[in-house]
This record gives sequence, C-alpha cells and structure tokens, in this order.
Amino acid sequence: MVVVLKPQTSREQMLVLAENLKKLGVNVAITEGVTGYVLGILGDTSKIDQERVELFPEVEKVMRVQEPYKKANRKFHPNDTIVDICGRQIGGNKLAIIAGPCSVETPEQITSVANSVKNSGAGLLRGGAFKPRTSPYAFQGLEDEGLELLKVARANTGLPIVTEIMSPKYVEIFEEAVDVVQVGARNMQNFDLLKEVGKMSKPILLKRGLANTIEEWLMSAEYIMASGNENVILCERGIRTYETYTRNTLDISAIPAIKKLSHLPIIVDPSHAAGRREMVLPLSLAAIAAGADGLIVEVHNDPANAKCDGPQSLTPEQFQDLMNRIKPIAESVGREL
Amino acid sequence: MVVVLKPQTSREQMLVLAENLKKLGVNVAITEGVTGYVLGILGDTSKIDQERVELFPEVEKVMRVQEPYKKANRKFHPNDTIVDICGRQIGGNKLAIIAGPCSVETPEQITSVANSVKNSGAGLLRGGAFKPRTSPYAFQGLEDEGLELLKVARANTGLPIVTEIMSPKYVEIFEEAVDVVQVGARNMQNFDLLKEVGKMSKPILLKRGLANTIEEWLMSAEYIMASGNENVILCERGIRTYETYTRNTLDISAIPAIKKLSHLPIIVDPSHAAGRREMVLPLSLAAIAAGADGLIVEVHNDPANAKCDGPQSLTPEQFQDLMNRIKPIAESVGREL
Amino acid sequence: MVVVLKPQTSREQMLVLAENLKKLGVNVAITEGVTGYVLGILGDTSKIDQERVELFPEVEKVMRVQEPYKKANRKFHPNDTIVDICGRQIGGNKLAIIAGPCSVETPEQITSVANSVKNSGAGLLRGGAFKPRTSPYAFQGLEDEGLELLKVARANTGLPIVTEIMSPKYVEIFEEAVDVVQVGARNMQNFDLLKEVGKMSKPILLKRGLANTIEEWLMSAEYIMASGNENVILCERGIRTYETYTRNTLDISAIPAIKKLSHLPIIVDPSHAAGRREMVLPLSLAAIAAGADGLIVEVHNDPANAKCDGPQSLTPEQFQDLMNRIKPIAESVGREL
Amino acid sequence: MVVVLKPQTSREQMLVLAENLKKLGVNVAITEGVTGYVLGILGDTSKIDQERVELFPEVEKVMRVQEPYKKANRKFHPNDTIVDICGRQIGGNKLAIIAGPCSVETPEQITSVANSVKNSGAGLLRGGAFKPRTSPYAFQGLEDEGLELLKVARANTGLPIVTEIMSPKYVEIFEEAVDVVQVGARNMQNFDLLKEVGKMSKPILLKRGLANTIEEWLMSAEYIMASGNENVILCERGIRTYETYTRNTLDISAIPAIKKLSHLPIIVDPSHAAGRREMVLPLSLAAIAAGADGLIVEVHNDPANAKCDGPQSLTPEQFQDLMNRIKPIAESVGREL
Repeated sequence: MVVVLKPQTSREQMLVLAENLKKLGVNVAITEGVTGYVLGILGDTSKIDQERVELFPEVEKVMRVQEPYKKANRKFHPNDTIVDICGRQIGGNKLAIIAGPCSVETPEQITSVANSVKNSGAGLLRGGAFKPRTSPYAFQGLEDEGLELLKVARANTGLPIVTEIMSPKYVEIFEEAVDVVQVGARNMQNFDLLKEVGKMSKPILLKRGLANTIEEWLMSAEYIMASGNENVILCERGIRTYETYTRNTLDISAIPAIKKLSHLPIIVDPSHAAGRREMVLPLSLAAIAAGADGLIVEVHNDPANAKCDGPQSLTPEQFQDLMNRIKPIAESVGREL
Repeated sequence: MVVVLKPQTSREQMLVLAENLKKLGVNVAITEGVTGYVLGILGDTSKIDQERVELFPEVEKVMRVQEPYKKANRKFHPNDTIVDICGRQIGGNKLAIIAGPCSVETPEQITSVANSVKNSGAGLLRGGAFKPRTSPYAFQGLEDEGLELLKVARANTGLPIVTEIMSPKYVEIFEEAVDVVQVGARNMQNFDLLKEVGKMSKPILLKRGLANTIEEWLMSAEYIMASGNENVILCERGIRTYETYTRNTLDISAIPAIKKLSHLPIIVDPSHAAGRREMVLPLSLAAIAAGADGLIVEVHNDPANAKCDGPQSLTPEQFQDLMNRIKPIAESVGREL
Repeated sequence: MVVVLKPQTSREQMLVLAENLKKLGVNVAITEGVTGYVLGILGDTSKIDQERVELFPEVEKVMRVQEPYKKANRKFHPNDTIVDICGRQIGGNKLAIIAGPCSVETPEQITSVANSVKNSGAGLLRGGAFKPRTSPYAFQGLEDEGLELLKVARANTGLPIVTEIMSPKYVEIFEEAVDVVQVGARNMQNFDLLKEVGKMSKPILLKRGLANTIEEWLMSAEYIMASGNENVILCERGIRTYETYTRNTLDISAIPAIKKLSHLPIIVDPSHAAGRREMVLPLSLAAIAAGADGLIVEVHNDPANAKCDGPQSLTPEQFQDLMNRIKPIAESVGREL
Repeated sequence: MVVVLKPQTSREQMLVLAENLKKLGVNVAITEGVTGYVLGILGDTSKIDQERVELFPEVEKVMRVQEPYKKANRKFHPNDTIVDICGRQIGGNKLAIIAGPCSVETPEQITSVANSVKNSGAGLLRGGAFKPRTSPYAFQGLEDEGLELLKVARANTGLPIVTEIMSPKYVEIFEEAVDVVQVGARNMQNFDLLKEVGKMSKPILLKRGLANTIEEWLMSAEYIMASGNENVILCERGIRTYETYTRNTLDISAIPAIKKLSHLPIIVDPSHAAGRREMVLPLSLAAIAAGADGLIVEVHNDPANAKCDGPQSLTPEQFQDLMNRIKPIAESVGREL
C-alpha cells in the first residue's frame, strides 16, 4: 500500500502519521518526492482498511499494491483448481459443457432436453427451478417442483444438475437435491447468500454481476471460500455497457484475466451474454479459443414455446452443431471436448 | 406493442401470425410498410411476454409502447405518493433529511450523532447494523446489537430509524424494530428479498442498483408494491460508469425522470454517490435544486475513526453547514426544510 | 510515480533497474515489502512515459502520483482563471448564460432568438453554423452563411457569439468572425484541431467527450494551453452510460471535481445532456447549485420547426422562466446572474 | 417508423397530425390501442428526421423500424464486400493480418519489423507516422518522415502500408503515399475528416470509437461511402466500460453483429483492446473463432524501447507464435491464413 501525502504536509506531521500507521501492525518506508512525502506500507496490508488510511487529514490518496483477495489469488495458489462434480471435472484438460433449458417446465421437456444434450456430449444439465425475473408478473419458475423434475432427469441421464439458488432459505434443500449451486449475476453481491453457500458441500457456480469488476467478482468468490467452500467455478455472462444491440457485452478478456489472477476455473455463458440465438455459436467458439474451461448454454426442445429466454435458446440440432464446431477449436488450443 | 416482421414474410404467414397473437388475448392491427408488415398489438400487453412474441420465426423485432410497470406508474396514479413515517412525511412539500453514521458502532457514538443531527434539523436517523461489504474480511456491522442501539437512539431523540435489511430471514425482527427498511443497491434485484419486504407494513427505501436502469428500478418497486406494500421511497445513489474520479456517478437526471414516470417519492444519497466528503455539499444542493424530496447523508462524530465510509462522512459541524446552505435552495424551489 | 516490482525480482535485478530509471533524470527511493520491492520515483515525472517504465521485465505495475497535466492544474495555479469575452467574464462571480438555437437557420430566426435571449438576460449568443450530425443525410448547417448571420445578430444585439469549429481549415475564418470557439464533444480528442485552436487568440469552449474521463478532458485543455491559448472554458454536457432514458447522463459531480483539480471555469450544457426539453430546467438549477460558472442552453423561437435538436430546445418563454428560477439559486450560492 | 401518441390525444388531433406527416412524403397507417393512437409511417423514412416528428405536441415517442444507414446495410447489399489492396483482399476467404509497430521510429526499426512480420505471414504492414496521444508532451510520431520510412519498408518487402490520418490537410499526401488509410477511434465521429477520406481512392480502415454504438459506427462508414468511397474496412478495438483491468473491453459480439447488419469486412485490434501483451494471443484466437476477417497487431523488434504502446507490442517471436496458433483456428472456421 502506497500512501501519498498532501503537498503541504510538514516533516513532523509525516512522522506522527507514520507512527500511527505502524500501530496497524505494519512497517512504513518514507520517501520524499518533489511534491511531498510518499509512504510505503510494508507487511500484510490485507488486514488494513484502505478507507481508514484515507481518513488521516495529511493523506492525499492511497494506492493498493496487493490484491485484496487471498484464497482466490493465484499468487498464493499457483496451481489450477479443478472442481470435481460426481466424477466430472471443471478446470482440467477436458472442457465442461453444461446445457439445458432456461427453466424447467414439464417432465417431458426436461427429460427430452436432458437426453438430447447428453447425446450431443454435454457433461452436465442446467435448468432453472427458481427464476430471477425483472417483472413480478413474469413466470417465476416451478420452484420446488422444478427441483424434483431435475432430479428425475438426472436419474434418467446420469447428468449432474446445475441450478440457481435465490435465497439462503433454500440452502438445505439445494444441498440435498443439487450437484452444482448457481449464484446468479443479480446476487453476486448478495453477501448473506454468499456466506450461506460458502457453508455448503456442493460446488458453487458464481456468475459475474452485470456491473461488477473482475476484482469484485474475485472478492465474492473470496466470500464463499472464506466461509469454507473452495469449490468455486466462475462464469462470465456479459457485462452492462452503453451498447444496446446485444443484451449485454461479453467480456471475452475476462477469461485470460481470471486465468492470470486466479486459480479458479472459468466458464462462459454465451446465451445470456448476447440474448440472441444467432450469436451463441460465434461467442462459444471465441470463448473456447480464448481459454475458457467450459460453457453453459441454453437449449430448449421447443424454443418458440419456452417460458423464458426463448430467443436465446438453441434447438437440440443447433446444440449438436455447436458441439461439432467446438471440437476442432478445442483441440487447436490443446483441450479435449 | 409493435411487432416488425421480417422483409420476406408473405401475406399468408403474416395472417397466421396475427391469428396466433390474437390468441394471447389482444387485438392486432395490420399495416404494410415498404420493407414489410408491421403489426400493432392492441389491448393490455402487460400480460404478454415480449420474448414469446420475438420467438415467432417471422418476427424481426418487438418494440414496447407501454411501460411494463403499473402500480409504480404515474399514468395510472397521477398524484404524488406521500409516505408517512411516524408522522413525518416523505414526498410532500417538506423535505426529508435522513442523517446518521454509516454503521452503528457504540451507544455513545449513535446517541451523540443522533442528537446532533436532530439539533441540525434532520427528521430521521440512519445507521447500519447489517453492512454489505465487498470484502469478507471487513467489518460487517454490529448486527442485532446494532438494531438495539438504534432503538435506544430513537428513544432518546424521537427520530424514526432507517436501516438496511440484507436477508429475508430478518424480516420479522425489522418489522418490529425499524421505521423504514432500506434495501441496498446490491440487493435491488434480489427478488426474494423484494417479495418479502413487500409483505411488511413498514415503508421501504429502495436504493437504485449500480448498473440498473430507471425502468428496472421501477420494476423492483413494482415487485414490492405487487406484494402489497405501496410505501416505497426511491433513492438515487450514483451509478457505475467509466469515470473513476468519483466512486459512482450521481445520475441527477433520475430525479426529474422519476418525477415524470412515477408517483413515488425520490431522495438522493450524495455520500455514496461521490465517495468523497467534499462533494457531499454541492451534490446535496444540486439534488434539492433538481427536485428531490430529500436526502440521506452520512454523518459521524469522529469520521477519522469510523468503522466504514469515513472518507465520505460529514462531521456534525459540516452537516449543520449543509442544512444552513440547503435552506435557501429549498425555498427557491418552493420546498420547506 | 510508484513502481511495483514482480515478487520474484532479485536484489541485483532491482538495483540494475533502479540505475536505469535514474537515467531518465529522476531519483529512486527503494523500499522492500513482503511481496517484493517497491520503487518510488522522485522528481518531475511529467517527462516520463509511464508505458516505458511498464516495459522493464521486472515491473509488475506503475502507479502515477502526480496528475499528468500542469497548465490546467490548480496545484500550480491556485487562483481561478477568469476568461474575458468582449468585456463579459466567465469564471468570476457573475454567471455566464449562453443561449441560442442549435443551428442558425434564417436571418429572422437568429435575430429573433438573439433579441429574446438578450432581453431575458443571456450574456452570449450560441448558434451552430457547422453542425456535427451522426447521419450524412441530416442538415449539416448553413456553414459560412451561418457565420455571417451570427455576425448580423451580434451587430444587432451586442451579444458575443459562440459557435463550433469542426476542422482546422476554418481556424482563420473563426479567428476573424467568432468570439468564443467551441470544440464539440466528438472532437475533444481531435488532437490536430486542439493544436490549431491553441494558436488562436479567441477563448475556447471545450466540451467533454461522451466517453472521456475528467483527466482526459483536462489533458485536452492542456493541449490547447500548451499551444499558447490559456483561455479555455470547460463544458460538461453529459457522458455516455448504460441508461437510455436520457440521451446522456449529466455528470453533475464533474463540477466540484473540476473546481478542485483545475483553475479553469466550467459551465454546463443541460440541453444536450438530457436531450429532453422538460429536463433543461431542473438540470440547470442543479448545475448552478453545484457551483457551475454558467450554462449554455438551446433556445428556439419555433422548436417544432427547428432544423435540429428541437426536442431539447426551450421556447423564449421557457427560457425567461428558466432565468427567473435560476436567480434565487444563484444568490443562495453567492453568485450573481 | 412507429409514432406513439399521447394518451389524451383526440381523434381530430390525430387526424391533423397524420395529414402533417403525409406532407413529409410518406403514408400513415392509423391503429387505435387501449392507451391511445399509434401511427405507422410507411415508405422511405430515411429522409425523415426522427427529431422533427418527436416535436409534434401530440407525440409521446417515436420508434425507428429501419436502420438509418443504407449503403453500409446488408439488407440492401446482401453480398460481402471484399476490399482489394494491391492484390491482397480483406473480407474474402483468406484472413488479412496487418502487423507492425505502433509508431515508425527509425529506418532500421521499421525495415526490421516489416521483414520479420512478412516472414511470419503478415499481408500488410502497419506503422504510425502521425500519432494521437492523450498528452501534448508525449511523442507525436515522425510525421512526414515516418511516411517516407514506411514507403522504404514497402519497397523492401512489398507489403502494402496502413497508417493513420489525423487531419483533412494530409489527404493529398496520404492519397499518394499510403495503401490503406486508417481513421482512428478518437476521430470516428470527426465528420469533416470522414467526408474528406470519402473522396479518396484508397480503402479506409475505420476504427470503432471508444464509446460508439455499432449503429453509430455504421453511420460513420455511411459518411465515407456517401462521399463516394465504398472500400471501408471496420476495425473493432475495444470499447470503454467500467472495467479497469483491461484498457478497453474488446466487444467480441461486434463481429457477428457487423456480419449480420452489414456487408463490410471487419477486423480486430487485440493490442489496443487489452493494452496488455499477454492478452494479444487469446483475444486474437477468439476474434478469428468468432468470424473476424483479420487482425491488426502491434509488433516491435524491441518493445522495451518502443516510443509508444510498448506494453502491448509483441516481439517478432511472439508474433510468429501467434501466427502458428491462429492457423488451426482459422481452418476450423473455414478460413485460410
């Protein structure tokens, strides 16, 4: 942490401040520039609240040198984390493809989609039982009944299931029913929920918030990990920008960024990023080429009658085509499908 | 709702589509442009899922004409909503000034701040008991003990208390202890929480999310109102943009926008918007001049030792100065302080 | 400038690097943190290219301590700059109100508007002769003829004229014809144009770019000042964000930010910021309350037939009302209208 | 164009308005919804100024159905445009790789880089002679001398040269010296420059502005095409968002978007998008996988001593590696390198 003092600070004031900073359990190195003093704070600054330091009246600004996350930080855990889900792995050499409908609707629908995505090579089944909808008047998911249908689909296909949790009150039921617990973009900074899923034994798929920085995203992973659950899978799903042609802007650079900053696996959701079916294929290919560990893709057996997100869902045939096209890209970046 | 068909759509296809749309319970007006057909969907389209319509293969795009919110919509409720809190009103002629520390820390601190802001003319006391913090290692608030201290401060000063709820599990305790329940920016689309506070009898202060549009904000108000609680106070607190000099960018235009679109009262939080103490005064004056119904301001008796948000907290003297300076602005826009 | 070295850098590598940095004409202070070395670069770092330093293979990151602008920096020029325009001042105690149509259309139009805004108290006349339009098919302004009409309006009213320059090739004609030369938002980083207007004797009104930071804006002012023209007036006109209800988002915080960082005057353009006539009044009041030195407002005698920007233009009556309403706000912040 | 009238508009007012609209040379279809009238404007609405229509007092809002660009619109030109540059093509089956240093520095530097990128398979040479720099104190390029050095490098290698124009005054010299004229991101809406390069015979490489929508970008291409030059190559180079880890956010979705909306070729600049050398490879692979027609990459023989943009420049060895890695990706999407 580097602390820049105001130009008019006297040597005496600076020395008093340095002593105060040392009381926070760190060492302080003093350097004198042309426009004033600059203090280097040495030691473990993760315990120091930047805001507290900014409050000393002599301080002009404070700049962090270290990242504020530890458990999620590759510096302290150089090896890739590989998350195991019922024997399937996310983060290793083999790509993880999660596919399924936006929301679980009927036994026939979820079983039909599950079978077809399995046949195309998907390794996990997604499907929403509890749905975050912008409008209180929109379909909110089948809720508990949806979870039951997902379990039936799992029993029929052997595919582990991934579904979204929206409230701490469902932790127990998800712990029992689900294989991967998704925290949605709108809940990325629902800190009470993060703490609760951090106590679960199941891996957590943590979507990036619409307006959250990569650092904030890793801090939310840190919340989960600090509560005891180190099996976190990150999912880039587009961020909010001024561009309106796409629903969100897929931040493809987040893939190499996360690979550098963290050891956690990262997958991409091309369906929500674009909000347009015809973009799912090119964005999927781009994500794999850029180094993503997998994809989560919306597939529906009858998109025109889907209860949500129809415009961005692939048909089973389109999904099969997507898998065929991913294969050579995966191989050319040294990954297996 | 206006539905633009793809250029190559035939008259027969168009007619079949029009029949399908009528099955959704609306009328359809057909017009033929140079590049193809345009259908006008007439009737109550709030029940129609725009995505469903986009899925018909002949459809190029769908444009909404009506706002998707009803209870929060000024068109259907032309008169301003005035929220009553223990006899104090928000949304009427008199401005509502809510002041207090970021977080409740000690009995002395909260009582001292409560007394001083009351003496300066504040009408309500704010103070965080449960704190949303980006880092799991930062101070998370005194929690239940903080609520108790707020109740003591209320008993001593008579000021109603405003504090943030972070999880549905606290609804009962907040219903009993608190006068205004704040939903924070990071939870603006925590739909489970919105539904729960919608069942409370206490007014809800709904902060705008960092990356949420005015329409999404009103849709979140609609969630609360649709659950039965029509006492919603909106709070603009800055949005996330590319500018890094300020912590967020106060969207001052949101004030006249909300006044036009909705009947709900709107206040401004200049402290979180800027993240800089020296901006609290100019942003407060601007907010009142632009027509805000009030302010929520962080005040701390000892900002340099505040457990959070010190850099943006005013001292009691600065708050007194703020109140003095607001007064003539309020009067010049026909409001009372 | 603070240079953070990579964790694995050896003491020898660090010393070699420090010697290399000293060759750039600065001193280097060495401090050793837990995760590695941090170098403080002391002296006038405005000559040092941050990118050059980032290139040394041992460097992890470089953080600037000093602002990169000098002539526009309040640290080096503590007193407010007051720009004089034919005896009228911008930046002093009296507010500068610039009003007029988006574009000059006919002799009657510009003379009529000029007379009416003068009668309402405007101090300068705005009017576009060369118009930046998104579409090549839209009205591009009367060009040279428009300048002539502005001169007639000035002769009739005595109001100095403010108009936009779009290309270096017009510098000579603007030097002769115009009193304040406007550089539009889309040209804020048209560096060739900045250099050319920097050689003019007339004051420059520099609008903020749609996606430019406050620092980049001041760097563009620095371009003009470094070319010899220190009479720069900054104009905040809204930035581009994800919000679509308003055309742009007025960054009201830019006013106190500029007041702190720079000595240059700052005015606000509420018409372009919102793109909605009904917002011009509240945004104008907010701007003055926040400390702006003036306004530039679109006024048209017949907005419904304006050749551009009609929806955001005030009628002369609305402008008169605006002036009446600004007056008490101005007085309450210690300014004169 | 769809015109929504205000709820209280009477049938008589609506009919008068419809007559007025017809005077603009279009037909009007009237439909009556529950909340009021909706008018469909039929015919060529590209001549109609949306703002003019918004000004009628009965109008609540206007929604465009047609895109405002014509010459750049795939609807009117279904086949891909292939731009020919001295026998090399951009937009066809073969990918176009443009490589070279940020700025031309010395004869040795540009010749050395030109030879090495040619040997690695690049088809065109880039190099800046006139440099847009945020700071007036930074290196501004060798200017005319830089053009001369580029010509020498072309003579030595046979590679056509691509370089940036910053002012209309250089049109003549660029017409003579250069093979592809680049319009930089900061000049994307420098309309005077667009008009001038629209008169040139050389292809134009039009970079997307930092805060410009895809529609505005195509409108700027339209400016060039409307002036007579239909050889426009679009270049996505990252947009400005709230994320600060990367310099800009590469909008990978712009590739399929442009492919759908326009017939013009699109290439990607991974170097400026990220501003970080280690991201150039993954972003390049992603761009090709997503369907880009080529890349423009910064390569420097000695990045540590580059006069600008060193941190994002590849060494010749890294560029060779990039070309090796692109090859299988290109093939897997049916393209040739």
